[in-house]
Amino acid sequence: MAAPLVTLTTDFGVRDPYVAAMKGVIYAIQPHLTITDLSHDIPPRDIMEGALFLAGALPFFPDRTVHVAVVDPGVGTPRHGLVIQAGGQYLVCPDNGIATFFVRRYPIQDARIIENPRFMRGEISPTFHGRDVFAPVAAHLARGVPLSEFGSRIADLVELPVPVPIMTPGGIEGEVVHIDRFGNLITNIARDDIPKEAACIVQAGAMRLGNLRRTYADAPPGEPLALIGGAGFLEVAVNGGSAREFFQFDRGQPVVVEIG
Amino acid sequence: MAAPLVTLTTDFGVRDPYVAAMKGVIYAIQPHLTITDLSHDIPPRDIMEGALFLAGALPFFPDRTVHVAVVDPGVGTPRHGLVIQAGGQYLVCPDNGIATFFVRRYPIQDARIIENPRFMRGEISPTFHGRDVFAPVAAHLARGVPLSEFGSRIADLVELPVPVPIMTPGGIEGEVVHIDRFGNLITNIARDDIPKEAACIVQAGAMRLGNLRRTYADAPPGEPLALIGGAGFLEVAVNGGSAREFFQFDRGQPVVVEIG
Amino acid sequence: MAAPLVTLTTDFGVRDPYVAAMKGVIYAIQPHLTITDLSHDIPPRDIMEGALFLAGALPFFPDRTVHVAVVDPGVGTPRHGLVIQAGGQYLVCPDNGIATFFVRRYPIQDARIIENPRFMRGEISPTFHGRDVFAPVAAHLARGVPLSEFGSRIADLVELPVPVPIMTPGGIEGEVVHIDRFGNLITNIARDDIPKEAACIVQAGAMRLGNLRRTYADAPPGEPLALIGGAGFLEVAVNGGSAREFFQFDRGQPVVVEIG
Repeated sequence: MAAPLVTLTTDFGVRDPYVAAMKGVIYAIQPHLTITDLSHDIPPRDIMEGALFLAGALPFFPDRTVHVAVVDPGVGTPRHGLVIQAGGQYLVCPDNGIATFFVRRYPIQDARIIENPRFMRGEISPTFHGRDVFAPVAAHLARGVPLSEFGSRIADLVELPVPVPIMTPGGIEGEVVHIDRFGNLITNIARDDIPKEAACIVQAGAMRLGNLRRTYADAPPGEPLALIGGAGFLEVAVNGGSAREFFQFDRGQPVVVEIG
Repeated sequence: MAAPLVTLTTDFGVRDPYVAAMKGVIYAIQPHLTITDLSHDIPPRDIMEGALFLAGALPFFPDRTVHVAVVDPGVGTPRHGLVIQAGGQYLVCPDNGIATFFVRRYPIQDARIIENPRFMRGEISPTFHGRDVFAPVAAHLARGVPLSEFGSRIADLVELPVPVPIMTPGGIEGEVVHIDRFGNLITNIARDDIPKEAACIVQAGAMRLGNLRRTYADAPPGEPLALIGGAGFLEVAVNGGSAREFFQFDRGQPVVVEIG
Repeated sequence: MAAPLVTLTTDFGVRDPYVAAMKGVIYAIQPHLTITDLSHDIPPRDIMEGALFLAGALPFFPDRTVHVAVVDPGVGTPRHGLVIQAGGQYLVCPDNGIATFFVRRYPIQDARIIENPRFMRGEISPTFHGRDVFAPVAAHLARGVPLSEFGSRIADLVELPVPVPIMTPGGIEGEVVHIDRFGNLITNIARDDIPKEAACIVQAGAMRLGNLRRTYADAPPGEPLALIGGAGFLEVAVNGGSAREFFQFDRGQPVVVEIG
């Protein structure tokens, strides 16, 4: 049988020994597992970026994967630590909204507040629950400890306010929610928000981009286009270039779809 | 027996969930394998840098390793996806030249166009073949699917134009093909291009660097030198510093060896 | 039984194929092991940062872990390569001080100079011992080769000069030794240097920070505070921000604790 799989997502970077310490703690509790890094480059303290990252990554993992996600500006305050079971997988994280999209997509099967000190390190730093709480809990979960052992059930998790696209008579008004490494502007307008077969014009800044294209190379080099990206959301891109630079756009700026 | 080994090389970075999604897809198909990251920091869309990276990394891996390399500005266009067997290892990648140096060094044993939808994800995003084509193909390859199952044989792969050093009566004219993290200027002049025992003077910009040295510390601190780097190519470096900054050099700038 | 665990810490970054080549060498010698990356983002040639990183990471790993740490500006010079056994774990590294804090915390059980060519690659590049010496030695160590096989015993390792805090009648004078990704200023003043129960005032630059707090959120947003960080050292931070930017501090700048 394959070893249990534990993934790590943090805003810690790897210049500091924080992620390494978490790995040590996990391996020391349960050497017979596989740890894989998802990202340690979530922008510092940016819970929304962490939540979007998990939304784009977690659906592809097999059942019983244990995901640890630590973007935790409230570490050491009374905010809870959580173990969530949803979609057949587990997510260990602070209760600060980082699970927002994951639990919208997969109804919660069970969620527990991390309370049982037996699954934490002996001494708990008020500034580093990644190492002292979330890592050991993940290791114990991976070695088969049932969810009910970690603490009492919790029904309502903290959710992030999510910018929802607005349906208007003429189309859809959305906004840029994430900009990727290539400078692609990813919006909150889902593929299913746009009527199939309808002609549509995508507007970003002062620019009208015409109908949706299939892929980046469907525009001339250096020219902008709109398409449905790999996660199923409307994306504004530049073939061979950066739409962020082309449009001088940041997160939050509007993208509009005119339909009909 | 050790689990099959799959390596990942991309220009995706890890701020976005692209690499994580690929890992999820691979583990979901075949949990009993080891995935190791080689790099996700290939400069965006830079196929030549990807090809040079593979040249420096792949020769050291054991037989039967499955390498996935995705630098793919033409994703979604009619460019092929490939599974290549060479030197006893496998390389899964777009047919855009990223395999250039690998297949020069190791004659192709078999190369196939990825055609069989059975080894792809059910729905294929035209912008994310890393997740929907290359990752699942790698997982199936690692679990033992024979190469012939993936598609029809292909003989001629796309090759990058490679700058070749010019042999002149007085020596060799090469150029900088890669600059590493330390600012070392790595050229296309191989160790074997330079006659053994011959005195030689390496010229970079207006500077004459004298004979080849053994290692970085063979020049005074802050001073430039020329040596044969770890991959067997002539390299211009600065002891304890950056030759890139010292010479204000970029890729493509000339380095000349005068012999005799 | 779980596969042996090998960790990698370098200043190589991952844009170049150096780390990938090390992984290939290790897997080629011993496929049945787990390699995990700790960091490849140690600042280039910064042995002190490497040593501090190991101090913050290694204590959490299980017995028999093999750590490879390569920050090696003196590669190819007569500096020794080492295999150190301490605290039940192994550290493979150049003898340049990178082991300083590790061997202070865990008395050396055995330390050997890497001499036996049987455990190195056949051809050794004078500029890349990471691949040709340290990686293969780690692989052989992980597959059970006894320490005594690698070379002769060494008693005195190179140690870095470490800035020690000064105890004064009025308190403690320390300095910033590391600045983390969040901009937290981590000093060389340990928790145990500060008398428990004593009132204290932490002074950084022209600012007096009052008593130690528990966690970052114990100051108002954007305001500075002092606390004991996750590794047990006095740290100056800003709630939700960067103390580095707030104080315009670099490594080496003084932080003073007034006691009483």
